[in-house]
Amino acid sequence: IGSDPNNWIIDEVGDGNLNLVFIVQGAIGKVIVKQALPYVRLVGDSWPLTLERAYFEYNALIRQEERDPGLVPKVYYFNKNQGLIVMEYLDGYNILRGKLIRGEKVIGLAETLGRHCARLSFRGSDLHMKTSKKKQDVSLFQRNNELMAITENLVFTDPYYNAEMNRHTEGLDDVVKILRDDVQMVSNAQYMLAKFTNNTETMCHGDLHSGSVMCTENKVRVIDPEFAFYGPMGFDLGMLIANYLMSFFSQPAHRHSIESVSKYQNWILKLIKETVENFEVEFTKLWETERVGILYPKLLFEDQGYSSKLALDAVLRKVFKDSIGFCGIEMHRRCLSLAHNADFEEIEDTRLRAKLEARNLMMGRELILNVNRVKNVQNIINLAKEFNGKDIL
Amino acid sequence: IGSDPNNWIIDEVGDGNLNLVFIVQGAIGKVIVKQALPYVRLVGDSWPLTLERAYFEYNALIRQEERDPGLVPKVYYFNKNQGLIVMEYLDGYNILRGKLIRGEKVIGLAETLGRHCARLSFRGSDLHMKTSKKKQDVSLFQRNNELMAITENLVFTDPYYNAEMNRHTEGLDDVVKILRDDVQMVSNAQYMLAKFTNNTETMCHGDLHSGSVMCTENKVRVIDPEFAFYGPMGFDLGMLIANYLMSFFSQPAHRHSIESVSKYQNWILKLIKETVENFEVEFTKLWETERVGILYPKLLFEDQGYSSKLALDAVLRKVFKDSIGFCGIEMHRRCLSLAHNADFEEIEDTRLRAKLEARNLMMGRELILNVNRVKNVQNIINLAKEFNGKDIL
Repeated sequence: IGSDPNNWIIDEVGDGNLNLVFIVQGAIGKVIVKQALPYVRLVGDSWPLTLERAYFEYNALIRQEERDPGLVPKVYYFNKNQGLIVMEYLDGYNILRGKLIRGEKVIGLAETLGRHCARLSFRGSDLHMKTSKKKQDVSLFQRNNELMAITENLVFTDPYYNAEMNRHTEGLDDVVKILRDDVQMVSNAQYMLAKFTNNTETMCHGDLHSGSVMCTENKVRVIDPEFAFYGPMGFDLGMLIANYLMSFFSQPAHRHSIESVSKYQNWILKLIKETVENFEVEFTKLWETERVGILYPKLLFEDQGYSSKLALDAVLRKVFKDSIGFCGIEMHRRCLSLAHNADFEEIEDTRLRAKLEARNLMMGRELILNVNRVKNVQNIINLAKEFNGKDIL
Repeated sequence: IGSDPNNWIIDEVGDGNLNLVFIVQGAIGKVIVKQALPYVRLVGDSWPLTLERAYFEYNALIRQEERDPGLVPKVYYFNKNQGLIVMEYLDGYNILRGKLIRGEKVIGLAETLGRHCARLSFRGSDLHMKTSKKKQDVSLFQRNNELMAITENLVFTDPYYNAEMNRHTEGLDDVVKILRDDVQMVSNAQYMLAKFTNNTETMCHGDLHSGSVMCTENKVRVIDPEFAFYGPMGFDLGMLIANYLMSFFSQPAHRHSIESVSKYQNWILKLIKETVENFEVEFTKLWETERVGILYPKLLFEDQGYSSKLALDAVLRKVFKDSIGFCGIEMHRRCLSLAHNADFEEIEDTRLRAKLEARNLMMGRELILNVNRVKNVQNIINLAKEFNGKDIL
């Protein structure tokens, strides 16, 4: 960026919950400097957090680059003691969430992210990796327990009782009561927490919402993997779908006509459908071409003259099923727990916000209760349409 | 044992597959010295293996003692560099497998081992442990990957193709073909392998067969946890039931009259039933009294005035379901893979052996295919009776 620090212009631009992010502009270029603080940025120094998370973000970025080259920012420098990563400035890119709020479309979004989730899932698993190397990696990432604990509490548990840092929009009390009184649903959510915390299928991004994606009109990059952990293959996919669904439900507050609402909402539903389809297509391709790990080895199937289609279907079924559960929970926590998202937060009319959030919350419940019955992405889309027409409040 | 080594009498007594075991007798006492070799004892130095396994055995013994005091041998000394553990000599105890072959009963066996499995399962999980401590433990035990790899290959994969070290009794070819041609079953077995290798619910013994249990007439101890790993709660229970079932099916070769066969077989079925019942009773008790981890916290249930019975049922259902799958696989690998067990191996009449093993193999298949339909221990017992009357060969 040019070697004279006197000419550098430094802007703090972070809008995330945890860290400081700077753009450092020199004479001939720009970089991003991301630095972990010894506490949670969103809350302040009353919530201490070690700098270790930068180390896991760095390790995750390296692995993501290996498993799906070109999708994450290039890393130029890492300093463990300072919890500091210097990385590529994504010129011309904007946060996806803002684009979804503004009603902008991104060409190739479903394809890129569906494929990305599949590549991360497959290539970080025992379907592909050498198992000794994989266990070494799991051993490393289990130490990212501080950030896993944030997810464990804020995502899976806090929404379902009156936790101290919770907040929700005025007018939602009755809906919140329905959710918290639903012992079957709360039990299912905890079952998903057990999967989150006890399942080391693959390295997940760990926080793949629309604020962790940056896009131009037709290019897509993924950022901020400090929550990376070895977890269920369906986790990232479920979180992503949840964030698309929240964008979907919030649209009536962001578009100016019924027609433009409906048009953009249909685009989001298509996005969800194609994301899942691209995930499955890519996963299937990798299953056929890169299945060299200990799981479902070819020597038990293809090498014996048998198709492994049945086995692949069982694996994809499990991934999808898990993603449904995680999706429902993410839809809840973004309206009930500490970290809300702009799709709903920026709706100033709280009555309208509550009305739209209620649809989102009740559909989330439906997903958590019916992980076995929501069998394919079309079922998700049908449910979204159904709840979008409901006046719950 | 007395400080003058000149008076020590040292006997090599190991009958396991991996290590050397010595009884060292001094003037005033005896100890067991167990030493890891840099290779697999059963196979020889063509199969190298690091001494690390002694380190994991030592770490497992400490945790087992903490989680179910008095069940494992006391550890007197550990030397990591020599892969050597000095531990309590279990005076008057014999290996359970031998007792089952000889038709001896052990008072309190079901109660002790059912309770032991429940205590290990519960107290090593996120239902009980602090999650940061638990993840630290998982991180440690993921490094026991050499021994996990033995299980991954020998237990889950080798039985289902013509692996180099496999062997099976003459006359079983047709049955073996049925199993290996059953793509649905092989796929299910690999689904269980994925659970084994990707699931870190609790610290399992990892090799809890009747050769890892020592008993007097009414006392029970558990030995040899070098395969310990953080895995599915149902793993140990499933392995144990499988070994009881193999004892059950082998009885016609070991007893002298139809009546004594039937009497002892009934005792084994009762043992299986009571083992599962005791597991569930103890697990339920711990659920009620020691549930202080992040999973299913009381603040979401009891503290809100709701019962957590529904949640407990879901957890127990999953544990049982997993145990069914692992059980079926263990029944297969002990007749088809490298490490057979004495219950069948000691039957000199190979025609009789094949006949009894065939029943065992076909019941194993039934379990692997029907993990969802075998809903309780009575179903297992009914299947055992059904296959015990079948003439498959």
